[in-house]
Amino acid sequence: MRATVDFLLNDWLVVESLLDRECFAEHSMETFGSVLDMCERLAAAEFAPHNRLVDTQEPHFANGRVVLPRETHVAVARYVESGMLAATQEEAAGGMCLPFVIEMAANAFFCKASIGISNYATLTTANANLLMVHGTEAQKRVFAANQLSGRWFGTMCISEPQAGSSLSDIATRAVPDGEEFMSDALGPRYCLTGNKMWISGGDHELTENIVHLVLAKIPGADGKPVPGTRGISLFIVPKKRVDAEGCLTGESNDVSLAGLNHKLGHRGTTNCLLNFGEQGGATGYRVGAPGEGLKYMFHMMNEARIRVGMGATVLGVAGYEASVDYARTRVQGRRAAAAGKDATALPVAIIEHADVRRMLLAQKAYSEGSLALQLYCARLVDEQHTASRRQADEAGLLLELLTPIAKSWPSEWCLEANSLAIQVHGGYGYTRDFAVEQHWRDNRLNMIHEGTHGVQGIDLLGRKVHLDDGAALRLLAARISETVRHAAALDGLSEYASQLDLAVAALEHATHASRVGVSAEESLSNAVPYLQGFGHVVLAWLWLDIATRLHVRTDAFAAGKQFAMRYFFAHELPKVKAWLDVVAARDMTTLLVPADCF
Amino acid sequence: MRATVDFLLNDWLVVESLLDRECFAEHSMETFGSVLDMCERLAAAEFAPHNRLVDTQEPHFANGRVVLPRETHVAVARYVESGMLAATQEEAAGGMCLPFVIEMAANAFFCKASIGISNYATLTTANANLLMVHGTEAQKRVFAANQLSGRWFGTMCISEPQAGSSLSDIATRAVPDGEEFMSDALGPRYCLTGNKMWISGGDHELTENIVHLVLAKIPGADGKPVPGTRGISLFIVPKKRVDAEGCLTGESNDVSLAGLNHKLGHRGTTNCLLNFGEQGGATGYRVGAPGEGLKYMFHMMNEARIRVGMGATVLGVAGYEASVDYARTRVQGRRAAAAGKDATALPVAIIEHADVRRMLLAQKAYSEGSLALQLYCARLVDEQHTASRRQADEAGLLLELLTPIAKSWPSEWCLEANSLAIQVHGGYGYTRDFAVEQHWRDNRLNMIHEGTHGVQGIDLLGRKVHLDDGAALRLLAARISETVRHAAALDGLSEYASQLDLAVAALEHATHASRVGVSAEESLSNAVPYLQGFGHVVLAWLWLDIATRLHVRTDAFAAGKQFAMRYFFAHELPKVKAWLDVVAARDMTTLLVPADCF
Repeated sequence: MRATVDFLLNDWLVVESLLDRECFAEHSMETFGSVLDMCERLAAAEFAPHNRLVDTQEPHFANGRVVLPRETHVAVARYVESGMLAATQEEAAGGMCLPFVIEMAANAFFCKASIGISNYATLTTANANLLMVHGTEAQKRVFAANQLSGRWFGTMCISEPQAGSSLSDIATRAVPDGEEFMSDALGPRYCLTGNKMWISGGDHELTENIVHLVLAKIPGADGKPVPGTRGISLFIVPKKRVDAEGCLTGESNDVSLAGLNHKLGHRGTTNCLLNFGEQGGATGYRVGAPGEGLKYMFHMMNEARIRVGMGATVLGVAGYEASVDYARTRVQGRRAAAAGKDATALPVAIIEHADVRRMLLAQKAYSEGSLALQLYCARLVDEQHTASRRQADEAGLLLELLTPIAKSWPSEWCLEANSLAIQVHGGYGYTRDFAVEQHWRDNRLNMIHEGTHGVQGIDLLGRKVHLDDGAALRLLAARISETVRHAAALDGLSEYASQLDLAVAALEHATHASRVGVSAEESLSNAVPYLQGFGHVVLAWLWLDIATRLHVRTDAFAAGKQFAMRYFFAHELPKVKAWLDVVAARDMTTLLVPADCF
Repeated sequence: MRATVDFLLNDWLVVESLLDRECFAEHSMETFGSVLDMCERLAAAEFAPHNRLVDTQEPHFANGRVVLPRETHVAVARYVESGMLAATQEEAAGGMCLPFVIEMAANAFFCKASIGISNYATLTTANANLLMVHGTEAQKRVFAANQLSGRWFGTMCISEPQAGSSLSDIATRAVPDGEEFMSDALGPRYCLTGNKMWISGGDHELTENIVHLVLAKIPGADGKPVPGTRGISLFIVPKKRVDAEGCLTGESNDVSLAGLNHKLGHRGTTNCLLNFGEQGGATGYRVGAPGEGLKYMFHMMNEARIRVGMGATVLGVAGYEASVDYARTRVQGRRAAAAGKDATALPVAIIEHADVRRMLLAQKAYSEGSLALQLYCARLVDEQHTASRRQADEAGLLLELLTPIAKSWPSEWCLEANSLAIQVHGGYGYTRDFAVEQHWRDNRLNMIHEGTHGVQGIDLLGRKVHLDDGAALRLLAARISETVRHAAALDGLSEYASQLDLAVAALEHATHASRVGVSAEESLSNAVPYLQGFGHVVLAWLWLDIATRLHVRTDAFAAGKQFAMRYFFAHELPKVKAWLDVVAARDMTTLLVPADCF
């Protein structure tokens, strides 16, 4: 993976140009490289060797505590020591001032080595980063800083047993804690009661405290929760009570572990049902304004979704690398010759078989294409935060549009890559003696959490492509046109340029046609096929852009990327028509089927 | 599932017409129905309740024995009592004289309830059926009869650690056991040495003995194994030695359990590495002629592959049914209205959401379509064995052609259905508290065993479509034309008839074009996309044929099938072009990518 990451960062995304910006001025290509070196090394040494162990020794509850393998404690401690929790923060906050794209690339090595271990840190960073933007000075000093240093870890408490995708139905209540609730040093103080489901890292003994960020509703004047998402506010609820200086008071807060979820994968991470306020109310400190909770959460959702996409991506890469290794060493069968197979010939490594190469090339196209997509989006985050106004606005707009793809595409296609990795291993891949079955299990979560495929589709077709009267889609089309123009002028790439051009036209047509003469519900009934078609067009674009960048090179690395591009255009891009035709035709089959027909 | 099975058997495949044949003359529609009733009931009572338990309490080795849960012993005993092991055998052999299609349908209920428990019986029946065709009278009396009665169970020992798909590399040796090896009452007696891998049911204490059917090579005159598959013979190797009357002699045969495989799914079934002849040689009795072993195995391979396809199918059905139930009862979210969502409206059951219906309809189209395919193929087996000469020949030819599809299509698309079943359940589907994640894990095996996807593709494009100068494909095209002609004359179906007609033309074109001007290896490098495109055309045909049969009906059952057909034509059939264009264009990307590019 490292060579591809280096190429994507240095040659394709030209991260060197970020060094001109004031916030990154202390860095150099060498410091970027040494962060990547450090993370790659640490992940290989401290995370990878325990990935199977954390899968088999699931968290369990004993003597009132959640027990994790010792190896998780050690790995997490090493990670904390690396300083990566605060990688993108400023030095004043104990950070490294790294660009987001470098942080994403560096942390990807940990996710690849063990997603089950790395989840704890990912959530903590996301939690602290949110507080650094939306918290008060005291909240930053107490709750963010102690997470960025790794003294405490954090969670996101969004879902409830009855409300997963449907956030407007959140039932957790927050009521002002006494008359003087506004005068607490840590922020407006509330009493929370409710149940939160699917809380990753929701309980453990890895750190002395856990900082929950909790969505809850403050009752309106009539004492009832406000319907819809408008009533949702955001609260900091520590597992153990702390004082204004961040010292533990010795009292526990009213947050109790109601159950551990036993999942198909991601078993290294505790996943909890938490009850808030079983004994009267958990103390929570409001973040920002009442009723703005979802906005704050969504402020970080783009980054969270890119992180989910990156998790899916590196599981894809891990399976790809494992199956390339296996295919090079596993000897079986013979190549077909003109006169059939020669049984007296020596068997060959299975990488010699065309269908094995097909499965490897598909994995490469899916997983390395996804890697390009995630890093492209991460680069847009940096543009959004540090570029000049117009560029930043453009980057933000493009990021909004691409985020549903960055979340959904790897979660679908790197899962498929993991299935192909099993297939390359044959029967062995179906056993727990090899890593690939765990990759496949771990990856299956990514189409579900942080917004399901269905939610991403509706976000894309129902909202994103129509933002600013379609400005985001026009911007994307313009970027793709640029790639098409470059590629069209290069030997051997012009045919791909034409294919991509046609695909974009089909996408634009389907986008427009999807709404003609139908209701929103009707149009959105095909949101997932639209998402799938859109995603394949984006990936074809990225692959062609990469091939364009590598056009002059003839080494094996460059040839591999060019073959992956050719695979994508020959085998994958043509699928776009099947998805988009449904959308453009406003086919209503799935909406119209009566519920009693199943 | 039962209503669909009844419709497919009675209305679509008209099994009643089988009653005219002498071998089935003792049966009636009532006896067919009562076998289905009995199996459905028994599977629900004795298999289904233990499916999760056999997944979590994996077989293990203790005190020299393989330990299985008590529940497996009980379930298997109830199954044996049902007499289904010998369902298709004649009464003289203790059987029920059932048509194969009825047996397949009836046994499908057990596979659906617990594939991990039912594997033992499936293998035993397949083993005994082979011996009933190719064994001597003594072999039938001792080895087949004792399996058909359930006193002993059986296995198929084909793969070896170094030879999975590549059977020509089998290294297990069989040498004549003494000068008088030809005079044993149980058949020519050999000494076997070698290692067999992936042996399902390879060891257990469910029955007093285990009958292994083992592929091994008899050394040639030079003492060396004959290269290729020509040298392979078939042997009966009992776990414990028996005399000519089938009584245990009290001596164990030289077959030892070298290890249990720990799989991703199918955990209820022991899966073993067996060593033959560690102490000098295991006694084996040759079946049939030397060098014909693979032919005998393949004689039953069509049936075995339909059984694998059926296993994949019913896992798809199980996930479909579970997710329909969940979608009807899980309440979350609101339907999109013209003015956006109304947050004050009550939440609805998720089956009201269009994207959930899409996922249910896709599962229905995949799994019920697969069910039709498997039963259609099983019906062809009956035609092949009991119809008049010309019809039997036609059925045999068509069966040869469709078998790779019957094996591969459900293993790919009912796995996809299982993934959609998880998705319908959201986060809950990703936990082990629900059945759907186990379906998905169990189903992943089916693309691997009994011939991988790659093997099926090569069988189809390299051999089957060219049999008898393409006679099988012409026959299939003629059958499809018949459906097209019927459908074209029916209101509301003619557009689908045209689409199917075009798809068949594209298939015929790709079949022809795949070989023009290229080598066999080049042509076959696209065998899997060909297999996928071919499969989708076949399924579209079956769905249209079913819709034609139901055309006059307007009840919910019929409407459900019609919507599944419409879904298949709108969402699935268009994918065919993407697969077949690669084949027709003789795209060589996957063959040409150099191994050092990965």
